[in-house]
Amino acid sequence: MDSIHKLQEIFANFPGIGPRQARRFVYYLMNKSPSFLNEFTKLVSEIKKSVFECENCHRFSAVADSHAKQTKCNICSDINRDDTTLLVVARDADLDAIESSGAYKGRYFVLGGSVPILDKEPQRRIRLETLLKHISDSENSNEENSRALKEIIISMNSTPEGDHTADIVRDALRRIKMDLKITVLGRGISTGAELEYLDKDTIQNALQNRH
Amino acid sequence: MDSIHKLQEIFANFPGIGPRQARRFVYYLMNKSPSFLNEFTKLVSEIKKSVFECENCHRFSAVADSHAKQTKCNICSDINRDDTTLLVVARDADLDAIESSGAYKGRYFVLGGSVPILDKEPQRRIRLETLLKHISDSENSNEENSRALKEIIISMNSTPEGDHTADIVRDALRRIKMDLKITVLGRGISTGAELEYLDKDTIQNALQNRH
Amino acid sequence: MDSIHKLQEIFANFPGIGPRQARRFVYYLMNKSPSFLNEFTKLVSEIKKSVFECENCHRFSAVADSHAKQTKCNICSDINRDDTTLLVVARDADLDAIESSGAYKGRYFVLGGSVPILDKEPQRRIRLETLLKHISDSENSNEENSRALKEIIISMNSTPEGDHTADIVRDALRRIKMDLKITVLGRGISTGAELEYLDKDTIQNALQNRH
Amino acid sequence: MDSIHKLQEIFANFPGIGPRQARRFVYYLMNKSPSFLNEFTKLVSEIKKSVFECENCHRFSAVADSHAKQTKCNICSDINRDDTTLLVVARDADLDAIESSGAYKGRYFVLGGSVPILDKEPQRRIRLETLLKHISDSENSNEENSRALKEIIISMNSTPEGDHTADIVRDALRRIKMDLKITVLGRGISTGAELEYLDKDTIQNALQNRH
Repeated sequence: MDSIHKLQEIFANFPGIGPRQARRFVYYLMNKSPSFLNEFTKLVSEIKKSVFECENCHRFSAVADSHAKQTKCNICSDINRDDTTLLVVARDADLDAIESSGAYKGRYFVLGGSVPILDKEPQRRIRLETLLKHISDSENSNEENSRALKEIIISMNSTPEGDHTADIVRDALRRIKMDLKITVLGRGISTGAELEYLDKDTIQNALQNRH
Repeated sequence: MDSIHKLQEIFANFPGIGPRQARRFVYYLMNKSPSFLNEFTKLVSEIKKSVFECENCHRFSAVADSHAKQTKCNICSDINRDDTTLLVVARDADLDAIESSGAYKGRYFVLGGSVPILDKEPQRRIRLETLLKHISDSENSNEENSRALKEIIISMNSTPEGDHTADIVRDALRRIKMDLKITVLGRGISTGAELEYLDKDTIQNALQNRH
Repeated sequence: MDSIHKLQEIFANFPGIGPRQARRFVYYLMNKSPSFLNEFTKLVSEIKKSVFECENCHRFSAVADSHAKQTKCNICSDINRDDTTLLVVARDADLDAIESSGAYKGRYFVLGGSVPILDKEPQRRIRLETLLKHISDSENSNEENSRALKEIIISMNSTPEGDHTADIVRDALRRIKMDLKITVLGRGISTGAELEYLDKDTIQNALQNRH
Repeated sequence: MDSIHKLQEIFANFPGIGPRQARRFVYYLMNKSPSFLNEFTKLVSEIKKSVFECENCHRFSAVADSHAKQTKCNICSDINRDDTTLLVVARDADLDAIESSGAYKGRYFVLGGSVPILDKEPQRRIRLETLLKHISDSENSNEENSRALKEIIISMNSTPEGDHTADIVRDALRRIKMDLKITVLGRGISTGAELEYLDKDTIQNALQNRH
């Protein structure tokens, strides 16, 4: 396969991109100046240096201008956040969505992915051991009882893969001895939905989670 | 306005129909045989005779072939349904959706509509007094405590109009003296939804209703 | 089948309506007042009396208030229209679309339908004989050569059924002896279309009909 | 702006990509291995070396494995193509669409873009001078009359920008003295379209281009 088709294939694996749009990307780049291509590839090459993974929650953040090496992201460094809840998400984009809703003021943990239903080695898809260690550290670190971790909110997509990942996380959490509440996001009617058009599952969840 | 345009205007007020499709309906009927039109208008004229409104829950049902006058629908007549919950819906179509989910085995009450936000006379839109009377009758009728009404589930669309209607119903229920639990459907993530694409309200509800 | 389901089935055959919306129509009518239902069925019953079919082009028009019996529609009665072209359409709605484009000033003929590909008896679907007679009458009626019919524009949908109907009409026109130009609508790129997203057929037509 | 946001902004300018998907691309790359990023940037850097622009029609093609320097693409090198027609397109993707329709067997010329309506310097957007030179060369090169260039097909999108670009090309072609037919793609009904839903412009074009 020539290098043009290799590049097209790489683009076709970008999230939400099909072969046709991948081809358009290749044409788009072909028509760009060498200086543009240079800047683009430089930014891509340096992406690992431009971001750092928070040692605490494992989300990626842009490296600030300071020379000091950063190890914790701005959320983990914020002493005003609520230490009593830890929200576990699959990916950075999920964390972004929840953070920008303004509805959550606690801590986060990014699993780094989700687990397909027939996958045999979930530990290769998500950082489960790191999560367990993070939780046991959190439990020990806070002498002050009022700020100790009390609840873990498993926040996955409402899809079969999300449900499966949530099950794996829940099972792992239950195996370690701890005195924590484990919750999941409420299932039910989303904002703006009309009863008449709901699927059976959502009606069932909405009824079960009535309050 | 000539009678063709009057008919077009009537069709344009049918649910989900715009002026263009209303015009197509008129053309469709123009091309039909007199015997078809005759059957159609006969069925429409007799629609009130073909259905009866359940005196209990106020849903419409087709009249059965028997000569005996029916007053209760098949759900209200079913002694195996759970008398302890009453699910209040706006319209028959909502009841159909919930019933066909198979997730609910209690009783229903159809309000007959919902209340637009700026509406001054909600009692002209929904049968609120009838609901209150129905509830107080239900409370008294069941000597047997285990089958007495215990919970009212207000099941409205997750829209501003649905929320407003739910508020009106809840307020009215609270004004009458009674010992009943009042609940609403769970709000949250609907089946199949991805966190990344949720609106702020739904994220907020999903977090608040976590369990 | 009870009369409610019969009515639902009739609505489900209305153009563009599925079983679900048909059900909503029935609920909509159930909730209407007897006087509304009365007006509605009266308008439907009188639809044949409210319109007349033009004896010339066979389109339907609303009957005007006058007592005089109308036999020709306002387009056929308009002496300023161009007699030299006759545009043949399948249905009244197609005529409306062309007329409201303002791009055509000639005469029309409505076939009353189109012919499905495997249909054995096209003459039961479209008024083909009437068209042939109409054309031969038009040819004879105009002594004045400058106003004589010169071209027949067969204007069908660009679908297999439309193409098939056009073929049937063209074949019939060719069988009768006459000195008329027979044309079809130009196929090609529609307004706003982008080359990159065109199907093969449309590209082929656009190339073939380049000018 | 940090380098992450710079990269996100570059992706947001890729064809069809908004800020949200650009962000997902950045996250996608963050999670990729250094070796993947290395291959990706290498392919992008070498894109100019991997393709060559045909000196004749100016389309891009992948460089073949041979060491010989290529100057003409496979279409321009194909002696079986029809030399009498030259189809002028805005972009490589348009050429691909037409080529894969199989409906055209002549030669191509890629303008390299199109001209926005208020643009003051069209010559910076499209290679107009090169086209004029290419045509005059073609006219002179073919001694044999039967293979001489006879027609130029200006094939632009059916959009205001496409129309404007076609006007500019047509004007330029008319200014040079030559004995060539200049055509545009046929406008009309696209395959599968229904008369009832056509816009006025398309009806007008379909009538005008009837045949």
